[in-house]
Amino acid sequence: MAEATPRPTRSDAVRNRDAILEAAIDVLARDPRASMTDIARASGVGRVTLYGHFSSREELIEATLLRVIERSEAELASLDLSGAPMAALDLLVHRSWRIVDTFHRLLGVAELALSNEQILAHHAEPMARVRLLIERGQHDGAMRRDLDAGWLTSCFTAILHTAAGELRAGRLAEDDADRVVAATVVSLLAAPPSS
Amino acid sequence: MAEATPRPTRSDAVRNRDAILEAAIDVLARDPRASMTDIARASGVGRVTLYGHFSSREELIEATLLRVIERSEAELASLDLSGAPMAALDLLVHRSWRIVDTFHRLLGVAELALSNEQILAHHAEPMARVRLLIERGQHDGAMRRDLDAGWLTSCFTAILHTAAGELRAGRLAEDDADRVVAATVVSLLAAPPSS
Repeated sequence: MAEATPRPTRSDAVRNRDAILEAAIDVLARDPRASMTDIARASGVGRVTLYGHFSSREELIEATLLRVIERSEAELASLDLSGAPMAALDLLVHRSWRIVDTFHRLLGVAELALSNEQILAHHAEPMARVRLLIERGQHDGAMRRDLDAGWLTSCFTAILHTAAGELRAGRLAEDDADRVVAATVVSLLAAPPSS
Repeated sequence: MAEATPRPTRSDAVRNRDAILEAAIDVLARDPRASMTDIARASGVGRVTLYGHFSSREELIEATLLRVIERSEAELASLDLSGAPMAALDLLVHRSWRIVDTFHRLLGVAELALSNEQILAHHAEPMARVRLLIERGQHDGAMRRDLDAGWLTSCFTAILHTAAGELRAGRLAEDDADRVVAATVVSLLAAPPSS
């Protein structure tokens, strides 16, 4: 696929890179086996331009994952979690688990494109946010105190990842997932009525 | 290490294989980097005998995992889960999660020695047992009915695996793990007081 375009400017390059990454997020989430050609087509750039930005499929997938992570962190950081702990939990669950879902779809693509350490490093910030909320809920009495906030944070994360896996496997219905995840997390974290 | 022993009989071979596998379970769970020499030493057989049974470390690890799986299935199958659902759940949780823990320690060793399909195939039976119990609990009214038994089974499994991971990472205390896992699973599955 020859490209007879003039030498791109710096802003063209930024725009192309953006278009490629957006297309990659979209195309790979729908079809994990999508090729570089598929992604070039969806992003509206030629293969030469695509390879000019990303020299291999692995490199593109890594950049795609990092973009999804950055965006997710920004989205979660913008949430106002200062309200009543259980209401804040509800808000956080609904936003977080969709992010986890997108991430799972892409991870299914990536497998080892990112190292475990990279993935864990990017888990630290969202998990710290969940943990702070749980600690506040425990302090306020809205959340259970019989279990450690660190453990409950790990369970929260595990439930979200389980939901993403079940959804991908077709064992959890798309339009029921929100309710199911929220109900599960609430029963895990809420203070018992007696306390 | 030369072995000047007479040609082993068939029952010697069975006994040696057993000793090797038992030693491997023990040694590898404590030290994932244990060598064939370490395992030979712990099992009381020579390296030649060890390699006569298992031609590589990978082959030994696979056999070790399969033995742990078989034993776990036998142990879980022998549990009497016919009592009140929440009591049966308690029994199942306490036995299951230690098994998951052992398995995690060995999986940390094995990584891809067993394929994902093999691992999933061996998950089917214990998960079916959990699911049956949950369905019975839902029917009896002891367990929640707002969430599907399949989903609750997946969450149960996720919690046990999370516990194994947290224990290995040192974030969950060995002597507190039983209580923590049971309390978590109970709050996940118990019917709300109002229903």
